[in-house]
Amino acid sequence: MGYTLTEKILREHLADGSYELGKEIGIKIDQTLTQDATGTMAYLQFESMGLSDIATELSVSYVDHNTIQVGFENADDHAYLESIAKKYGIYFSRPGNGICHQVHLERFARPGKTLLGSDSHTPTAGGVGSLAMGAGGLDVAVAMGGGAYYLAAPKVIDVHLMGNLQPWSTAKDVALKVLQILSTKGNVGFVSEYTGHGIAGLTVPERATITNMGAETGVTTSIFPSDLQTKRFLAAQERESQWKPLAADKDATYDRSLEIDLAEIEPLAAAPHSPGNIIKVGDLDLAVDQVMIGSCTNSSYVDLMTVARMVRGKRLPEGISLGIAPGSRQVLNAIAKNGALSDLIAFGARILESSCGFCIGNSMSPCTNSVSVRTSNRNFMGRSGTPSANVYLTSPVVAAAAALTGRLTDPRELDMEFPGIQMPDHFDIDDRMIIPPLSPEQRARATICRGPNIGQPPVNQPLQEDIAGSVTIRVGDLITTDHIMPAGSRLKYRSNVPKYAEFVFEPLDKDFFSRASSLRDQGFHNLIVAGLSYGQGSSREHAAMCPMYLGVKGVIAKSIERIHAANLVNFGIVPFTFEKESDWDLLPEKTNIRIPGIRKSLEKGLDSVLAHAESSRKGEEGVGRKGENKKEEELVLKMNLSRRQRMILLAGGLLPFTVMSRK
Amino acid sequence: MGYTLTEKILREHLADGSYELGKEIGIKIDQTLTQDATGTMAYLQFESMGLSDIATELSVSYVDHNTIQVGFENADDHAYLESIAKKYGIYFSRPGNGICHQVHLERFARPGKTLLGSDSHTPTAGGVGSLAMGAGGLDVAVAMGGGAYYLAAPKVIDVHLMGNLQPWSTAKDVALKVLQILSTKGNVGFVSEYTGHGIAGLTVPERATITNMGAETGVTTSIFPSDLQTKRFLAAQERESQWKPLAADKDATYDRSLEIDLAEIEPLAAAPHSPGNIIKVGDLDLAVDQVMIGSCTNSSYVDLMTVARMVRGKRLPEGISLGIAPGSRQVLNAIAKNGALSDLIAFGARILESSCGFCIGNSMSPCTNSVSVRTSNRNFMGRSGTPSANVYLTSPVVAAAAALTGRLTDPRELDMEFPGIQMPDHFDIDDRMIIPPLSPEQRARATICRGPNIGQPPVNQPLQEDIAGSVTIRVGDLITTDHIMPAGSRLKYRSNVPKYAEFVFEPLDKDFFSRASSLRDQGFHNLIVAGLSYGQGSSREHAAMCPMYLGVKGVIAKSIERIHAANLVNFGIVPFTFEKESDWDLLPEKTNIRIPGIRKSLEKGLDSVLAHAESSRKGEEGVGRKGENKKEEELVLKMNLSRRQRMILLAGGLLPFTVMSRK
Repeated sequence: MGYTLTEKILREHLADGSYELGKEIGIKIDQTLTQDATGTMAYLQFESMGLSDIATELSVSYVDHNTIQVGFENADDHAYLESIAKKYGIYFSRPGNGICHQVHLERFARPGKTLLGSDSHTPTAGGVGSLAMGAGGLDVAVAMGGGAYYLAAPKVIDVHLMGNLQPWSTAKDVALKVLQILSTKGNVGFVSEYTGHGIAGLTVPERATITNMGAETGVTTSIFPSDLQTKRFLAAQERESQWKPLAADKDATYDRSLEIDLAEIEPLAAAPHSPGNIIKVGDLDLAVDQVMIGSCTNSSYVDLMTVARMVRGKRLPEGISLGIAPGSRQVLNAIAKNGALSDLIAFGARILESSCGFCIGNSMSPCTNSVSVRTSNRNFMGRSGTPSANVYLTSPVVAAAAALTGRLTDPRELDMEFPGIQMPDHFDIDDRMIIPPLSPEQRARATICRGPNIGQPPVNQPLQEDIAGSVTIRVGDLITTDHIMPAGSRLKYRSNVPKYAEFVFEPLDKDFFSRASSLRDQGFHNLIVAGLSYGQGSSREHAAMCPMYLGVKGVIAKSIERIHAANLVNFGIVPFTFEKESDWDLLPEKTNIRIPGIRKSLEKGLDSVLAHAESSRKGEEGVGRKGENKKEEELVLKMNLSRRQRMILLAGGLLPFTVMSRK
Repeated sequence: MGYTLTEKILREHLADGSYELGKEIGIKIDQTLTQDATGTMAYLQFESMGLSDIATELSVSYVDHNTIQVGFENADDHAYLESIAKKYGIYFSRPGNGICHQVHLERFARPGKTLLGSDSHTPTAGGVGSLAMGAGGLDVAVAMGGGAYYLAAPKVIDVHLMGNLQPWSTAKDVALKVLQILSTKGNVGFVSEYTGHGIAGLTVPERATITNMGAETGVTTSIFPSDLQTKRFLAAQERESQWKPLAADKDATYDRSLEIDLAEIEPLAAAPHSPGNIIKVGDLDLAVDQVMIGSCTNSSYVDLMTVARMVRGKRLPEGISLGIAPGSRQVLNAIAKNGALSDLIAFGARILESSCGFCIGNSMSPCTNSVSVRTSNRNFMGRSGTPSANVYLTSPVVAAAAALTGRLTDPRELDMEFPGIQMPDHFDIDDRMIIPPLSPEQRARATICRGPNIGQPPVNQPLQEDIAGSVTIRVGDLITTDHIMPAGSRLKYRSNVPKYAEFVFEPLDKDFFSRASSLRDQGFHNLIVAGLSYGQGSSREHAAMCPMYLGVKGVIAKSIERIHAANLVNFGIVPFTFEKESDWDLLPEKTNIRIPGIRKSLEKGLDSVLAHAESSRKGEEGVGRKGENKKEEELVLKMNLSRRQRMILLAGGLLPFTVMSRK
């Protein structure tokens, strides 16, 4: 029986374990990427492992998140990252060179290679046939050091594409269609693999839009085969020699299949406040206040040229703000050279730096109660920086149509010929803003630049015999890492955990920090209780690291997203799931919880433990206070952990585990 | 005896008082401009006057300071400003259209007109022969309502220019030379008027660089005559009909004269941390970490074309960050069209929005302990957002030389021909991002958009009979409005005084807010004691408004800068100066101060009052506590106030005074 493309690549990279569906395997990582917001901590952790060099084929450090630089912190981070790259043999993509995923796709991603990135949209490189996964920065640090990356051997979804996209329907609409079918839940542990005759008509940047936004379905990654389109793209990037053909075996079997006829794809939008909330653009009739074009999902050359052609000679209506952030310096300079940038400026666009900016609420927050149409990948409430804003995610052509008409408009209703811009056969290659690794002699002399915002990574103690503490917060379903660790103006504290920890759960509960640190200081453990799909969203490991710093020892949820669950383990926080989902009701805030013998249970490899919950009937008693109003319940908590993960938890996290293993 | 150009324009606009050197006169204001950081409050104040329309020939509302938009506040401000402009017949320059001074020079400034702007660099328009002054937003609001603007009839300095600039020496170096001669102190109450054969060789954008940075000398404004260069510039902007010749009378006499031979001007820099700290670039030998090109001082077409030509085909060295913010959309699109922008991108420049951004610490803060070379106008400590950074102010060619070599370099030492870019005879005119005033019918229907960050302006009570309180803070010489009311990440609270007031004196003393509000709440008055040139820097009236909100009733200083003194009066805070400067020593923090009969003294028109200061010998006693360790001193405080200003102070500020006068 044949292999899927996913299984082929994973088997080729198998470093630990035997390949068996759902069982944990360790795989060799060929390439890593980091961005600045997760990268500083990843490299701090890499440093604390005490290695002299990276062990990957290629590691790249990008700066794309915090490029605004209000205050010295961002610039200090950039200086630290540049100096670390020089010290350890890492490529450094300078601020302004572009968004990590766009630049990596253009210049580094290769068919058949494994790529681990400290950003949840790392699957973008799946567009070129790379098996590319997002992970926490610590996992990336371990992979840079030559350690395997562990995941459960995934189930694979066959996303079978037929036919061809019609004018005005785009790869983004395919990504939204996939989200409509798969939704944002229930896909943990899967990989989406694209097959079918329909893929031949999709260029690599189009495929990358689709694999990029696959992240929103919760799959481990998404991947396209490597074919003639892949060859054409690599050749256009002067990297033809890196091409090889790659596809699933003809007789491969899949765990799930779905078919999409590209010819039937219509312009779609993800309505507030979830990327899975899909609706036809034609069914919307809504005035628009802001249009933002860019992000790692949709800022390729063709994307921006298409927009430029649509708006050329026209004028942005009053009352609408239009911002455009090209995905990379390659894209920016291409449209600067050929005049399209001037067309965009003349139309009334505000040209923003090639960076993540608006997508992470780090600039261009819309005004109160406004409608913002964006080509990015997430519209969680408040992510734009404006909690009251309604963000619709669309393709660039729908965004341009909104900018032209002032309303959400099906572009097929514009009196306009589809521009039909083609991917060029040759991109202008200029890697001068990417600093290549130094020679070993130069590296030895290199010194690391540490500004006052560069803190040390917090190190956890080994797990105690028992967990004994209290439910410090109870949250509902679909809590994202944006809820746990806000970005926006808080992002600049990423390198400084004690400071950043002050903002844990800030969007939900401003007092969490004081309650949690007070309990921690009294010697109690903090526990987080959550609903379904806890920790969806980005790969930011700070959503585990900062709670660890505040003394959180366990998360008890109905379900936990893959990357976040791995991050919890990496930081010594036990990810529990309810045996009975309805037990969530038994654990309101301030419930006292004991999980006796947690250490022994992990040592023995048990997959469930008994927790004792003691809540006051009025819910008003403090931790450790006994009274007649108390009610004690017992509930079963499940732990889905590999042997390796149990050892990590016992050690107090991946960093102490890794250091310990080297001794 | 003939008139200076300054006196001519002022006399033509005389609306109140008789023209007598040093005496207060009221003049008619033809044009006003606001930017967003000061504008929201100016328009809130304009609204509270209850008028239906503006009474100026032209008023323009620009958005150039807070264009980053992290959080909803900035966008809400923009929406408010756009709606106010539509309601009251004001031009609205949309975000991204450029820096107010650059755009105003290009599209609106006219020879012989008076211009009042709520930004201290409004004198930029003096380059075209406009008498252009910075003032607080409230003064601008009053002028928009048709009220006169009051100032003391100024002394005039004749800055006589001879000869021609040599290659690599620029208008910026002339501005720095003037700063070297005049310094940043002692020029309050003067206007700098440029004369001599040397001016004929300077284009309007070059002249504007000089008048722009004249603000740093502390003069009321700087002005060039209107001549053939002026005609050429206006013609290039398709505004030739607005030209008229204008110059001082041949027999005009000046209060002070200085001569500068342009041929002897060398490349100069203002070294940290004052624009008056002038040194020859050739005398500096220093590695550079960051280069920032732009700002209202130096971001004209010729400025940026010159830089683009110098770096074309070359590569930015590692370790240096280069940011370029074109001054206006006109400039940006010109260099986008002709390929220069592509040259800048290819060199490695980060292209930033056409806005104030880096100049006000609102982006691109350099890293800790770094050297940043900037073409802007102020290098006060911490203004860049990085208190430890060393900022050097230079011309664009010196900045480009630093970007090429990585060091502060005299550009004459580059092995390069001077580009000698000429101002074009025709600029590409496109005002589509400036929304013109609506028709009266449309205005009547327009509604004003108020987000939750749009507060109401605080209103003061009439001045009490006595001042009785305490020295809440004592500061030294050269305190800027940046020290009093920080910009950067605090700027977004400009429309929300109770919030913004929390940050008064934050850079100097984080506890000022709690001390001052506590004293205010106990019924005591707060007093600020300061050294020389208190309140230099920008025109931000929040540096008076927020202290007023905190109950500050008086500033006692060795000297107070012109715009800030006017702002203090406008917000009901009495600006006192020491009769004996050495009395500063008698007033440490926590000194109790009484100024009995301040109200009567103002009513009677006295120009000095007696203050009773009671300090504890150990400086440890609280307000109002009596003890044996007390020492009481009497000191004379001077008040240099016009009758109108006394009436404003008695009313509690210009806003209650204006409303009262209309009743």
